[in-house]
Amino acid sequence: MGTERLRVGLIGLGRLGRMYGQYLAQRVPGAVLAAVADHKAANAEAFARDFNVPRHYVEHGALLDDRSIDAVVVVSSTHTHKQVVLDAAAAGKAIFCEKPISLTLDGAREMIRAVEKSGVFFQMAFQRRFDLGYQAARRKVQEGAIGEPMMFTSISRDPYAPPIEFCNPKVSGGMISDMGVHDFDIARVFMGDVRRVHALGATLAYEEMKPIGDIDNAIIDLVFENGTLGVVQLSRKSVFGYDIRGEIWGTKGSIEIGYYRQTPILMLNAEGVSHDAVPYFMERFENAYLAQINDFVDHVQKALPPSVTGADAEAALRISLAANLSRQEQRPVELSEITN
Amino acid sequence: MGTERLRVGLIGLGRLGRMYGQYLAQRVPGAVLAAVADHKAANAEAFARDFNVPRHYVEHGALLDDRSIDAVVVVSSTHTHKQVVLDAAAAGKAIFCEKPISLTLDGAREMIRAVEKSGVFFQMAFQRRFDLGYQAARRKVQEGAIGEPMMFTSISRDPYAPPIEFCNPKVSGGMISDMGVHDFDIARVFMGDVRRVHALGATLAYEEMKPIGDIDNAIIDLVFENGTLGVVQLSRKSVFGYDIRGEIWGTKGSIEIGYYRQTPILMLNAEGVSHDAVPYFMERFENAYLAQINDFVDHVQKALPPSVTGADAEAALRISLAANLSRQEQRPVELSEITN
Amino acid sequence: MGTERLRVGLIGLGRLGRMYGQYLAQRVPGAVLAAVADHKAANAEAFARDFNVPRHYVEHGALLDDRSIDAVVVVSSTHTHKQVVLDAAAAGKAIFCEKPISLTLDGAREMIRAVEKSGVFFQMAFQRRFDLGYQAARRKVQEGAIGEPMMFTSISRDPYAPPIEFCNPKVSGGMISDMGVHDFDIARVFMGDVRRVHALGATLAYEEMKPIGDIDNAIIDLVFENGTLGVVQLSRKSVFGYDIRGEIWGTKGSIEIGYYRQTPILMLNAEGVSHDAVPYFMERFENAYLAQINDFVDHVQKALPPSVTGADAEAALRISLAANLSRQEQRPVELSEITN
Amino acid sequence: MGTERLRVGLIGLGRLGRMYGQYLAQRVPGAVLAAVADHKAANAEAFARDFNVPRHYVEHGALLDDRSIDAVVVVSSTHTHKQVVLDAAAAGKAIFCEKPISLTLDGAREMIRAVEKSGVFFQMAFQRRFDLGYQAARRKVQEGAIGEPMMFTSISRDPYAPPIEFCNPKVSGGMISDMGVHDFDIARVFMGDVRRVHALGATLAYEEMKPIGDIDNAIIDLVFENGTLGVVQLSRKSVFGYDIRGEIWGTKGSIEIGYYRQTPILMLNAEGVSHDAVPYFMERFENAYLAQINDFVDHVQKALPPSVTGADAEAALRISLAANLSRQEQRPVELSEITN
Repeated sequence: MGTERLRVGLIGLGRLGRMYGQYLAQRVPGAVLAAVADHKAANAEAFARDFNVPRHYVEHGALLDDRSIDAVVVVSSTHTHKQVVLDAAAAGKAIFCEKPISLTLDGAREMIRAVEKSGVFFQMAFQRRFDLGYQAARRKVQEGAIGEPMMFTSISRDPYAPPIEFCNPKVSGGMISDMGVHDFDIARVFMGDVRRVHALGATLAYEEMKPIGDIDNAIIDLVFENGTLGVVQLSRKSVFGYDIRGEIWGTKGSIEIGYYRQTPILMLNAEGVSHDAVPYFMERFENAYLAQINDFVDHVQKALPPSVTGADAEAALRISLAANLSRQEQRPVELSEITN
Repeated sequence: MGTERLRVGLIGLGRLGRMYGQYLAQRVPGAVLAAVADHKAANAEAFARDFNVPRHYVEHGALLDDRSIDAVVVVSSTHTHKQVVLDAAAAGKAIFCEKPISLTLDGAREMIRAVEKSGVFFQMAFQRRFDLGYQAARRKVQEGAIGEPMMFTSISRDPYAPPIEFCNPKVSGGMISDMGVHDFDIARVFMGDVRRVHALGATLAYEEMKPIGDIDNAIIDLVFENGTLGVVQLSRKSVFGYDIRGEIWGTKGSIEIGYYRQTPILMLNAEGVSHDAVPYFMERFENAYLAQINDFVDHVQKALPPSVTGADAEAALRISLAANLSRQEQRPVELSEITN
Repeated sequence: MGTERLRVGLIGLGRLGRMYGQYLAQRVPGAVLAAVADHKAANAEAFARDFNVPRHYVEHGALLDDRSIDAVVVVSSTHTHKQVVLDAAAAGKAIFCEKPISLTLDGAREMIRAVEKSGVFFQMAFQRRFDLGYQAARRKVQEGAIGEPMMFTSISRDPYAPPIEFCNPKVSGGMISDMGVHDFDIARVFMGDVRRVHALGATLAYEEMKPIGDIDNAIIDLVFENGTLGVVQLSRKSVFGYDIRGEIWGTKGSIEIGYYRQTPILMLNAEGVSHDAVPYFMERFENAYLAQINDFVDHVQKALPPSVTGADAEAALRISLAANLSRQEQRPVELSEITN
Repeated sequence: MGTERLRVGLIGLGRLGRMYGQYLAQRVPGAVLAAVADHKAANAEAFARDFNVPRHYVEHGALLDDRSIDAVVVVSSTHTHKQVVLDAAAAGKAIFCEKPISLTLDGAREMIRAVEKSGVFFQMAFQRRFDLGYQAARRKVQEGAIGEPMMFTSISRDPYAPPIEFCNPKVSGGMISDMGVHDFDIARVFMGDVRRVHALGATLAYEEMKPIGDIDNAIIDLVFENGTLGVVQLSRKSVFGYDIRGEIWGTKGSIEIGYYRQTPILMLNAEGVSHDAVPYFMERFENAYLAQINDFVDHVQKALPPSVTGADAEAALRISLAANLSRQEQRPVELSEITN
């Protein structure tokens, strides 16, 4: 230890923001949660009081003016990411930015350029990369345990849909962008860049998705640059809980990632054999979120390069945009078609 | 019991033919294996001797001339199916025909017309329909246990590729037809007819597939007539064994079908926890094949309609053809495009 | 093949007897079911009609008089085993005898002596030895996969108690004898002979067991001659189905044997994740019973020594008797104490 | 929050002590780790430096003299527990004491009396009670999900033996006491008090245990006061990792507790299907240890009664002593026989 603890400001206190805030306040030994900001003053005040955070703000700019703060964790709404990141880069803060970086390629690129120009540390959030399962799988693949990967499968199913306003493609980018970006990022980790996509979508569980133009189930095929194949399945309706799984299929074996059971008990009764399932992402990825924020603090402190870059975020965004276009135009889309 | 046992002639003594032959000789109480035919005389003779089959032939026509025979099980090469079925229909025999019915829609239709005209009983083989897992899943879906099905997933992976001559698309129709037809049939059982397909294929495991124009891995998306979605994954290279799985994803739950373990033991040692896997289709579907052939015998004897019809075979074939076209032309294909 | 089929007579048409009868009639290629006998004439007649068995009898003696019969399968009530086996030995038939051989050591010994004197082939039923799981485990142990076995665990739990008349220790020997004999036999297969036992019993599920002096739950400890340890758990009340499991615990690893799931589907819905369980012994050990009866036929035809001997049955019986004594006297019992 | 954080002193910096220390320093929001003590000065100094602990001591007495300290966590060697607890009680500190409370009933009673007399808060460590699996099982049993519990099973197997000096019964009480006390405690949680035990032990894995008079494998039967039964299996040699499992067997169902897999991946390759296992207790019970120490802090702060009492520790100790006696004398032992 010995190092000075990193003084972190947290911007955005939604559900995910409060989770990061709690981790930073209590479970990240290398960091001090020095300030929080939320556009709702009451949120910021309450959180600061509950977790003994010295300062709280309404405007992110006020937090950035705080000279004692070394780094910011950006968990505000996606549409605010660009301005917050540009301002934080200008203020010379190290930046951790929740996904998605932006809803548009132009927005993402502007952020990346600003970060590069200012020279600040910039790390993107893709917590799945920090999950023990995905990490162990990556290690196995690198060791050659399954030979050459041939096919990639990824399934992401949420227990229920977010509020309809959020589902609106103009707000969240729609289901393929909002959910699929995790699968597209992890696809790149295992298989490399994507050349072409084909996407199907359907509205089968929530009638209210139709007026806003979004879907609740999707299948997205991926053709990777190296000629291998992938498929991503998404759903907004998984009544038993949070269903996150994947498979790396190789010439000498396969790795399946994920699990269903949350609590280590098995019930055996007249109805048969049963167990519970993982409720949602905080239960499934608690350790991954924690590892991810520790990784950010650690890399800033040790001046190591970021584990997840802006370019990674841009690449995953581009796949999302191509998949959306494919679904709309009912045709395969080359990634090279997506220019902004 | 009481009913006279059905006198069955078996045509074709390849690997699958010998399996049916053994079942008919020893494990199908309602049937007597009265004769076998194979274009290699030695095969027919040896099998007849080993299993006490009274008569054996080289030509299927000779077997069909045997007036004492009530029904035929057709397991000869696919390219011979049409002639054998036409001849068997003309001879008034009840017919059980191994899949695929034919490599062309025209061929399939000619067979179906001949059967209809002659009025003989005609049943197609799709053993997966008779597997306890798929049957239990079907029952659960019918009971509403998972609400409305939204997405269908099916995975078929063979432990190794068949001989390269068989892989040739001109002989077997290629991997998508040869393997995928089982998935397409079961897709129809759960989700209804298919409207559109999109297929991707790649040659990643067997270099020798390239000259003959076939692939060894594929992803095929399905859009069903009712607007739901499906995806089929195929591979010719599953080093751990035979990997057959499926999922029916619904508004109120999901059903996963299949299993990995063959032998009910679990090894726990310094390498971790492990078990064996299902080697191949005879181990995985032994009971399904047996149930299927019993079902045929039973339906003939009781004059019930066939469990799997020529129209079912034609529909699955059409999906295969559409998927092959989609893969070649790199575009979604409507099933209505496939006319011959 | 080529060998003449073994002509088998079946004595006893209770639940297990009808199962053997069906197998012999339809699924044992090397045998012909030539006759059945049951002390209820209607049973014998109905079975013979349903399965095309040429002859049927009320008295086992009449069946034994049938000179065309080579071998008998004895599945009559345990208290009749001795007389039937003595008579069958006198008649020179090969004998397959369902477990338990007898309720007393004296009875068992008299049977064994009679068989030895007559020189007929005599094989005992312990179907668990023919289960693929136990066989695979045995192979693994022999290969050294778990080093030296140190501890043996066996669990046998029935879905419900048999009729109370059968539970009576005077009829069935009581739960420890009736159920545990399978575990004691398989214990010997893996660990060798038993030196000492300690048994606990309790009546916790069925009040009606108390008047007849039997129990419905038991724990039996085993100390083997080689100094290793074992424990058997028995219960007459497993509401989810038939729970048969075991473990061989060794210096270099462990093997667990058994499984819960009957049908290869997994339900995922609002209640969690669930599957069915194995209902009862016919489902769990169908293949083992079939393999066992085929093994008997095969060994008789090839003049091989029996796979399970009378001495095996005597040894398992002795453990049962010691365990019953231990439970009654609340003390460990040396096997050498059990002399009759 | 709002409450003042509890100022905790930690006594003993062995493996378990360092784990508690790290938790108290970084992951227990309600506590401040104010001081550490270890009889090796270098240990105390290094730990204090690494985790920013303000004060460090060699003698526990010096730590107890620190008036600013509210509570102590006692993780020193078992033979020191008594003196430390007596001194801490005299100093008026709240006390958390690692198991086992003592190696003798007399010692335990003296500690309990001292605590009672002083009126300080005293909580024993039995982390398994705080594991999500055992807690969920308890909830299910209380809800009646399995009817009336009939049989209790508990398996504890360590990946390797501790240093031989520690195995010495005079130091650790021997395997049955050292390991089994967890099983005996959890047995009481589910089934109530124990009336009689029978224990078997064997030295099968480590020849070096013999001279010191300890064993490496054991089976302990339990008869509970309410007439139900239990069995505990212990082993010092589990080559695949840490094997902690249990089962509560009831009239309407059963609950199995525990799991093998550590990382959520499944390998499928030419060797079959495999996954890793849980290495040892820190991985298996990390969350339980953390929950336990949080529970202690929380109960002290809220003046709630302790979750695990000295009487609980005494009861578990008594079972251990009875089991050891039973093993030595090769006879069942009534708990009432154990008076000191």
